[in-house]
Parts: sequence; structure tokens; C-alpha cells
Amino acid sequence: MPIIVQKFGGTSVADAEKIRRAAARVIKAVKNSFQVVVVASARGKQTDELIADALEVNPNPPKRELDQLLSTGEIQTVSLFAMALAAAGYDAISFTGGQIRMMTDSVHTKARIISIGADRIHKQLDKGKIVLVAGFQGIDEDGNITTLGRGGSDTTAVAIATALGAEECEIYTDVDGIHTTDPWIFKTAAKIDQISYDEMLELSSLGAGVMHTRAVEFGKKYGVKIHVRSSIEETKGTIITHEVPQMEGVVVSGATVQKDMAKIGLVGVDNKPGNAAKIFSRLAKAKVVVNDIVQTEISTEKANLSFMIGISDLSAAKEAVEQVKDEVNCERVFIRDDIAEISVVGVGMRTHYGVAEKMFGALAEAEVNIDSITTSEIRISCIVDKDQAEQALTAVSIAFELDKPAQERTK
Amino acid sequence: MPIIVQKFGGTSVADAEKIRRAAARVIKAVKNSFQVVVVASARGKQTDELIADALEVNPNPPKRELDQLLSTGEIQTVSLFAMALAAAGYDAISFTGGQIRMMTDSVHTKARIISIGADRIHKQLDKGKIVLVAGFQGIDEDGNITTLGRGGSDTTAVAIATALGAEECEIYTDVDGIHTTDPWIFKTAAKIDQISYDEMLELSSLGAGVMHTRAVEFGKKYGVKIHVRSSIEETKGTIITHEVPQMEGVVVSGATVQKDMAKIGLVGVDNKPGNAAKIFSRLAKAKVVVNDIVQTEISTEKANLSFMIGISDLSAAKEAVEQVKDEVNCERVFIRDDIAEISVVGVGMRTHYGVAEKMFGALAEAEVNIDSITTSEIRISCIVDKDQAEQALTAVSIAFELDKPAQERTK
Repeated sequence: MPIIVQKFGGTSVADAEKIRRAAARVIKAVKNSFQVVVVASARGKQTDELIADALEVNPNPPKRELDQLLSTGEIQTVSLFAMALAAAGYDAISFTGGQIRMMTDSVHTKARIISIGADRIHKQLDKGKIVLVAGFQGIDEDGNITTLGRGGSDTTAVAIATALGAEECEIYTDVDGIHTTDPWIFKTAAKIDQISYDEMLELSSLGAGVMHTRAVEFGKKYGVKIHVRSSIEETKGTIITHEVPQMEGVVVSGATVQKDMAKIGLVGVDNKPGNAAKIFSRLAKAKVVVNDIVQTEISTEKANLSFMIGISDLSAAKEAVEQVKDEVNCERVFIRDDIAEISVVGVGMRTHYGVAEKMFGALAEAEVNIDSITTSEIRISCIVDKDQAEQALTAVSIAFELDKPAQERTK
Repeated sequence: MPIIVQKFGGTSVADAEKIRRAAARVIKAVKNSFQVVVVASARGKQTDELIADALEVNPNPPKRELDQLLSTGEIQTVSLFAMALAAAGYDAISFTGGQIRMMTDSVHTKARIISIGADRIHKQLDKGKIVLVAGFQGIDEDGNITTLGRGGSDTTAVAIATALGAEECEIYTDVDGIHTTDPWIFKTAAKIDQISYDEMLELSSLGAGVMHTRAVEFGKKYGVKIHVRSSIEETKGTIITHEVPQMEGVVVSGATVQKDMAKIGLVGVDNKPGNAAKIFSRLAKAKVVVNDIVQTEISTEKANLSFMIGISDLSAAKEAVEQVKDEVNCERVFIRDDIAEISVVGVGMRTHYGVAEKMFGALAEAEVNIDSITTSEIRISCIVDKDQAEQALTAVSIAFELDKPAQERTK
């Protein structure tokens, strides 16, 4: 019998009524002759409440103990879920991460999965049971409980789907799928029917709250088909899968805006080997994640260097740059924290011309000034003023017809 | 270094402030050069809340899943407790039942402990850590989570004290120790300084909410000194220990009343071998726990038989008796559910005369009618009308001077 993994997020299991509704989804799959494995998150705001409880006794709780505490939320959900299935007459068994040997490294609060005891799950499925696995958690080789970080239940689900050779991993959520852009800004944003792993990863900021990036990486690595869909409506959602030829017909799959970024520029750095390395090794030591590095020569001796960081890393980054700037003979440092990044993403860019032109044209027409531009093979990003971010995203969304299903757009 | 086990009940760890207060107790023991193991229950009303959550999805939840669910309450407490100790600068590590290999049988919701991975606890203690263990839970040999039943954290604590060879097992609670009788009825009931395991077991109805019977049995079996004391005040509580000669000087250690009982009588049963066995095997099949069986001959052919049961078993017991009564040629069945049992307990009864006389005299003076009497080596119990229960207990308490410390009573 084919296996399907169904993952239910916190909002989809927040109370008894919602657990029963989720159970009905599971039962439907059983009736369709699937062996079903359910992965669930903590109910509603449980994880936030547990974190608040922790901070009340210790503003800086030891991470091992925090993992021990937080793991309980998901265990509660899966045992209640199993009870709901039993009430409907279905035989179900719930497991903690440890019970199915979800082995991880020992990096508490953001552990990585090493292996899964698939045989333990298969054994129960083969007995005709619905298997429920607490998401987000594992154990290390010493038996300590670890957690995979926020959104880790998505990763649990995709990893289990991989380990079991499942047909599909369904991610149930409170929206009906992935949209071409943020519907809070561009109200008519279309739902995406199908998208490649790479596009989804580039659209990660869109996915925030919908789909965890690491889960997509996992899906890509092991080729698991991921189906993001509504836990309320019976509609088909968004399939995240391998790139298929027909995807190339879609020039732009989606557009994103990121507002929580800052840009740091070093003007007039000595243009000699090793200087860039000095700067970025100092930033790495300060644990600052750096994106979109741009270096331009301004003379034979001097270059300008700029990069993007998350706004939460700004003070650490400033300090790191201060420490290194004299060493590289930097004339001036500038910082912009009033910016946003607008991106368009699509595997079709590889074979279509004129995407950049259309994007810049749309921004110009909307009178949005472009600070700088970076591109990857399947993405074009423009830095704009933060207070123009929403009009920029809207202009780009209209230009690429992101309110229409992919097949109806102008070629 | 000597080891001490400290157990904190739900009310003693109900919120952050109380957890900090409990942590202060632990730190005091560390400063007194003890290696400390802490066993804790679920916070406040958590277990009740989880049971309510379960009943909301399934009025008859599978017991394995109920255990999986309920075990989370204690895990939350011990991880928060470890965080509180860390905040105070002490190195602590929390464990689930499974993590310290608290092995039990597979009888979900009332499992019995088989063995404990004491080496795992010793290893952490020897590293200088305070070890916290989630009470009330274990795992069976298949790795399923089990629970020990209500009050099971007491049993966990005493079992760990046994396994570690601890000096003492301290049970912290919201009262200052065990009292000679119910202070809600006899307000001036004295605190008992020292009591034998056997007396404590006989006084189990007193212990309800204070000390779990199975924990006392465990303590008796392995000779663990149990100290029931207040989590709020710094006073000495009640020591439950082996019988020592001086205990014999105390005629009556305590008095109890049990109101949730019923009496069933079979009048005129054929007095021939095997009839009693027929009746009680039928009751056993119906899972009715029977106490205080009394059989009296009324003629050479006929006997009367009566016994006590918990009131919650009354309908099951009635049905069982109906099924068997013709077979034993019973003339009439009577049932009394308007009764209460008043008992006095004391190891001193073995060597002192006149205890029964004093008890009956006190009841007579208070104009309490005695329905029937049963005795054990260290206990005398009288069945009285339920609406006279409180005046009966008061009369007995005054007669045996249960408002005074043991050493001040009339010899």
C-alpha cells in the first residue's frame, strides 16, 4: 500500500474541534487505501506559552532544558490526535521523536536530523495502524531530547516521508497554498499550482509561516513531493516538486518583499588580495549571515564593497566592520536600514529574455528608485526605499500578471 | 556524599514563584553537602486539564495514549525546575522517566516499577549536577510511556531513593506533615512526629492527598525513611520509618473516617464449604475490591455474611450478588450506603489492653450507634451511621487525646 505523510500545523490542531477535523482528513486518506503517517505541531500558541513559562523562571534558559520543555507540546497533540482517531473507530498509535529513533545531532534548539527508525513506523503501519509522530523533535545519541527549531515539524514530516519512501508529504495549513506574492500587499495574488524546490527556496520569505525552508531543502535533496494545502477547504494546494520542463514556460513564479534587512557599504577599500576575506571572516566570527555581496572597482587601487544583512544582526555587523575597517584602509562606511528588497523568482528566467527590463520598467513607472540590483540564475532583486516597498511589489506583481494562473499569463 | 531525594507535589510547583521557592529548598540541601535528586509532579491542575482535553476528543481514551499525554505534565515541571536552578547558578539536568530507564510493566495508567537506571543518575550526581526526574512515569520494555497512577510521583521518589541508597526521601507538600486525624473535622489534631510504615498504611485514608499508599509500601519493603514535610514552612514534618520500640508506647497513633463506603449483607446463606468462595469469586470477576468480610453462624445450616466495598463499586457489586444469591440459597440481601467507618490505628495496640473498650465507651457516650466492628492487629474499626460520622471521629479523637503530641498523652 502506498504511504502518505500528513503534517498538521499548530492552527490546524488548536482545539478538540480542529483535531477532529484533521482526523477526518486522515481517515479520508485511509479510505483511499493509503497507509498514513501524521506529523503534528504543538496546539495553537502552546509553544509560545511554554517559552513564556521558561523565561519566567530563567531569562536565559539552558537550551537542553528548553528542548526538554518544548518537546512536550507536540507529544500532547499526537496523543490527543490518536484518541480522536480511536473515537472514530480507527486504530492509531502516537510516538515521541525518541520512540521512533528520530536521531539528531546535539545542537539544542536547532538540531539536524541524522537518521530515522523507519522500521518502527513500518511495523505499526503494517499492523494496520495510523502512526502519529510528534513533530519538531528528536533525540541525540545520549538520549537527550533535541528540537529542530521553529517550523521544524515541516522538516520532520518531509524527513519521515523520505525515510518511508512515501508518495507525497502533505503540509496542511490555514492558507490554501503558496501564493505568487504576499496577499496582504497584492490582494489578488494567484495561488501557485506547482513550483520547483529551487523557486520555493528563493521565495522563502513568502514561505515564512507557510513552509519551512529546511523542509524544502530536505525535499529537494531526497526528491519528496510536498503538497501545501488548506486544512479547512478540500481544494488542491501547491505542489513543490522537481523542476519539470513545463515550468520553464512560466517566466516569473512569484515576487517577494523583505523589509527586515540592512545594507552595509565600505567605500574605498584597498583593492588587494585578501581584503574581502578579512572583512567577511570577521563578520562570520560575529555570526552575521551575509547576503548579496557586491564589489565594484572604483580605481586601480580602490574598490567599493557592499552587502546585505538581517536587521537583527546590524549591531554585531557594525562592530565587526569597525574592527576591520582600518586594516583594509576603508575610507568610509555607510549603513542603510531604511531599505527593502523586492525580488522576482522563476526558473523560466534561464530561457527567457527581458525579465530584468520588465521589472526595472515597472519600478520606474511606479516612480520607485532602485538603490542596487543583484541577480541569481532564477532571481532578480532590487533594493528600494522601505517606504516604497509596497508600491514596488504591487507594480512588479501587475507587470508579471501575478494575479493570474501561470498558464493564462502573456507569453 | 550522602544522597537525598526531594519530591515536590503539584501545589508546590504550581507557578514560577513556587518553583523558585522549591529550588531554594534544593539549594539548601546542596549547601548541606547532599547530592540531591528532585522528583516533581505536574504543575497545579495540569494533569486535570490534560484529562479534560483528552475527554473532549474521546470520552474513553485509549490508556496508552492517555499515558503518553499525561507524562508531559511532569516533564514540563522538571525542565522548568532545572532552569530555575540554573538561574540561581546551580548545574542541573532534568530527565523523563524513559531517560533514566524507569522500567515498568505495561499496565497503562497504573504501571508498577520493575527497575531504575540508577547508574545514569549517579553519573550525573558525580559530575556535581542536581538531577531532576519527572515523577509518575516510566517506560515498558517496548519503549511505551506508562504512568503509575494518581500520586505516582511519591512512588517514583521512594523508588529512586531505594535505587540510589539515599539517606532519606523528603515529600514536600502543602501541609506540615501527617496529622493524628482529619483537621477539617477535629481542628486541634496534632501533627505526628514519627510513625511506622504499617500504621501509615492503615491510616491511608488520612494520607489521601498527603502520601500515596504504594509509596509507603515501597518504603516499607526497602526500608526507605520518608519525611513528609511542608514546602512553605521550615519545620520538621512526619517521619515514616521502621517500627522502633518507642512507638509501642503510643497506643493510638491516629484515627480516620471513611465515608465513601457501602456494606452488603447476605442473610441466611447455606453454611457449606465453597459458598463463600462462590460469592467472592463472582465479586472478583466484577472487579469489586472487598474489605472487612465478616461471617457469623446463625444455625448449623445457615450463616450471615457481610462485607464492605467502595461506594463507586456498589452497582457492580449488587449485580454480582444478584447473580450468585440463589446458588448459595441466600434468604435476603441487604445494602447500606448510609454508613461510615471510624478507625483507630496504633502499633501500641499489640501490647496495650483496653483500646477497644475506650473506643466503644467514647462512641456510647457520644450516643453513636455501632453497626458492626472489625479489627486487625493494629486497627479497630467501627461502622456507624454516616450522619454521625463526624461526631464519632471527634469523640474518639478526644478519648485518645489526639490533640496532644504522643509523648504528652495519658499512659
